[in-house]
Amino acid sequence: MASLETALYALLAEKKYNTARDILITMNGADIESVFEELPEESLPLLFRLLPKELAAEVFVEMDPEEQELLIRGFSDSELKEVMDELYADDAADLVEEMPANVVKRILKQSDPELRKTINELLKYPEDSAGSIMTTEMVTLRPEMTVEDAIKRIRRTGFDKETVYNCYITDDQRHLIGTLSIRTLILAEDDELVRDLMEENVISVNTLEDQENTAEMLAKYDFTAMPVVDGENRLVGIVTVDDAIDVLKEEATEDIERMAAILPSDKPYLRTGTIALWQGRIPWLLLLMVSATFTSMILSTFETALAAQGALLLFIPMLMDTGGNSGSQSSVTVIRALSLGDLEPGDVLQVVWKELRVALLCGVTLAIVCFGKVMLIDRLLMHNPEVTSMVALAVCTTMLITILVAKLVGCTLPLLAKKIGLDPAVCASPFITTIVDALSLLVYFAVASTLLGIG
Amino acid sequence: MASLETALYALLAEKKYNTARDILITMNGADIESVFEELPEESLPLLFRLLPKELAAEVFVEMDPEEQELLIRGFSDSELKEVMDELYADDAADLVEEMPANVVKRILKQSDPELRKTINELLKYPEDSAGSIMTTEMVTLRPEMTVEDAIKRIRRTGFDKETVYNCYITDDQRHLIGTLSIRTLILAEDDELVRDLMEENVISVNTLEDQENTAEMLAKYDFTAMPVVDGENRLVGIVTVDDAIDVLKEEATEDIERMAAILPSDKPYLRTGTIALWQGRIPWLLLLMVSATFTSMILSTFETALAAQGALLLFIPMLMDTGGNSGSQSSVTVIRALSLGDLEPGDVLQVVWKELRVALLCGVTLAIVCFGKVMLIDRLLMHNPEVTSMVALAVCTTMLITILVAKLVGCTLPLLAKKIGLDPAVCASPFITTIVDALSLLVYFAVASTLLGIG
Repeated sequence: MASLETALYALLAEKKYNTARDILITMNGADIESVFEELPEESLPLLFRLLPKELAAEVFVEMDPEEQELLIRGFSDSELKEVMDELYADDAADLVEEMPANVVKRILKQSDPELRKTINELLKYPEDSAGSIMTTEMVTLRPEMTVEDAIKRIRRTGFDKETVYNCYITDDQRHLIGTLSIRTLILAEDDELVRDLMEENVISVNTLEDQENTAEMLAKYDFTAMPVVDGENRLVGIVTVDDAIDVLKEEATEDIERMAAILPSDKPYLRTGTIALWQGRIPWLLLLMVSATFTSMILSTFETALAAQGALLLFIPMLMDTGGNSGSQSSVTVIRALSLGDLEPGDVLQVVWKELRVALLCGVTLAIVCFGKVMLIDRLLMHNPEVTSMVALAVCTTMLITILVAKLVGCTLPLLAKKIGLDPAVCASPFITTIVDALSLLVYFAVASTLLGIG
Repeated sequence: MASLETALYALLAEKKYNTARDILITMNGADIESVFEELPEESLPLLFRLLPKELAAEVFVEMDPEEQELLIRGFSDSELKEVMDELYADDAADLVEEMPANVVKRILKQSDPELRKTINELLKYPEDSAGSIMTTEMVTLRPEMTVEDAIKRIRRTGFDKETVYNCYITDDQRHLIGTLSIRTLILAEDDELVRDLMEENVISVNTLEDQENTAEMLAKYDFTAMPVVDGENRLVGIVTVDDAIDVLKEEATEDIERMAAILPSDKPYLRTGTIALWQGRIPWLLLLMVSATFTSMILSTFETALAAQGALLLFIPMLMDTGGNSGSQSSVTVIRALSLGDLEPGDVLQVVWKELRVALLCGVTLAIVCFGKVMLIDRLLMHNPEVTSMVALAVCTTMLITILVAKLVGCTLPLLAKKIGLDPAVCASPFITTIVDALSLLVYFAVASTLLGIG
């Protein structure tokens, strides 16, 4: 890739615009955008102008808002109009949402009245709703049309449609009453009626449906587009599969970020500023740090016990970490199963029963290995006579109990969060760790005082 | 949903099969499968037999391997043949891969020779390769065909194809030389030539390409299918968008599991057995527990110092947790950016520079708040005179340094892992925590001995 960018840059410098153009037009919009990203900003407007209209629009849609703004600010009014004419309504609405007010004003001025109306309608839907990601360009047919009529209609109006693989059949009041794939249409006889061919059990979503649910449904039914209807079942748009994939990827990223105690951001890493990264990370770090006051309190209560049996201290990090890791394994498993739709809050008893058995297995295995490790490594290898077999026993018993507690807390908290309408992903590793830290210390000192008679 | 299942179950008990059938045929394959999942196993074969052939195949493909095996064992040879005839080649190959040997033998015997040959070919490709998830059913055209010929060919052969939205143009030696969407075809004149309409800059993947890369490329280019070619650029199949979405979801789940120190499994949570869950979780727990030996070693070295300044002990969990959380924020951000293709190992300097600035901001913020918290809560509120301002200073200084170290370790390790060909996701939270625990203790005691003159 790098050599291609160098070549393009050199061609521009030598004003060999036609050669540059000949190279670019062999490429795909997404690839051209990757090349543009690597080139100095000032060469973008020039290169962009070399592209044929349709390809230019493809490249434009792939760009980051910063690059788009830069280009628009350099466009003449007629250049801007040309780009707007090539954009699909949903992409145009996304653009308007991202641009600062003065740029938006120019964009709307250069869009034709119908596009302007559509943009305004799309912007009315709440963020993250099906309405906000749908396109209003689709092929609608009437039930009384013949296959021949239908194909004629598609030929007449189909050029501007983002997807013509599915046609939607509506009645007089624009109610969605059926769907028909181009495949069925092309395989049918000319004089058959749309009414007789169409699939009447239509699956659709409401404009206000969450975008993640919409994308999950589209994936579940293997659709290439999901019809979107208003409160009265009138067809208002479709969500296409490429937009659904973007939503699924974004939502997975958000889950992962929340699990790592980061507030979600919607920009690629290298384009996120230092301050923005800090803002996303500091709230949870602060909250979790202050919550650690509980562990300090517990430790200060048992300070004298620790002074009497110094060897106990050595195993505190191991116990806390193993507890934290066990708990976050359970919480992350449950969080992911919830987001894939494999689990619901109502399954809590099944989950607890399963985790209890897994926790017992893990706990017993770890306790046995731990006893061996403590006696062999920490006592013999490290020559520490303070590490007696009773200390090892106290450590192992604590480990077993901690793992049981950690896994139960880990699996129930996300289900509880979901139940009361919070995002389960915040109950992942860091949150669980903080709770389990405190619990494991309490267990440790209770076990130690019983077994070793201290405290 | 629950009432629908009760109704179906009651209808079966009353032998009202026609009514049950009438309900089922209004539904989508994916929905019928969800209903079947909730019903007792013994009612499945009966219900399945009520379904029309095509719908039965749709439902069958959605089922878990356990359910599929149960059904197949109950099928007569002719029933099995009917199902196999309706399956797409890639689904049939998946089925063969999942079933035990004696079931596979029956399946292959009841498949027609051509399907059997295709299944065997598909099974030859390595797991997780584009070849293993592609379908071999697609529409191929020749460049010299007219639009009319092409549409006739699709009508003649198109019924069995999983996707006819894209046609692929091959030459005499089956080399892939172009693509053409049904949309272009339907919008063109009858006597135009495929050669003149087709897109010649074809993007394709090799059969051995990783399935995740294939799915990411399909998503990047907004394709509904990605052509797959062999080493000599001969077209051998296509990967369709619905399978690509499944791959993207699976890979996100795997990443999340690895980040939580779990070995990836490919079954839904509730269907994974206790032993399988234990096997997925215990290896990392054992490894991380044994690694905690380092923290024990460090603590035992500084035992006397801790005895002299007991207050230092209270802040060990807070320092370790904050370090671990800071480090895993960075590692998880970098891991996700790597898997989205936003970052490459070569970007290491840019990443380090960015993380260094974020770490400084986070570190300074946390250190200041920490000083206040220690003096106000731990000293005043908890009445602990041992917590002097010098202790608070030692804690804050350690916190600042630990965060710097944790974020640098967190951002570089995943890049290093990727560079040497390991999965970056294993360098997430638990792994980073274990390293940062040891480092933060070392920093703590170094700082404390300098500021408080102990050790």
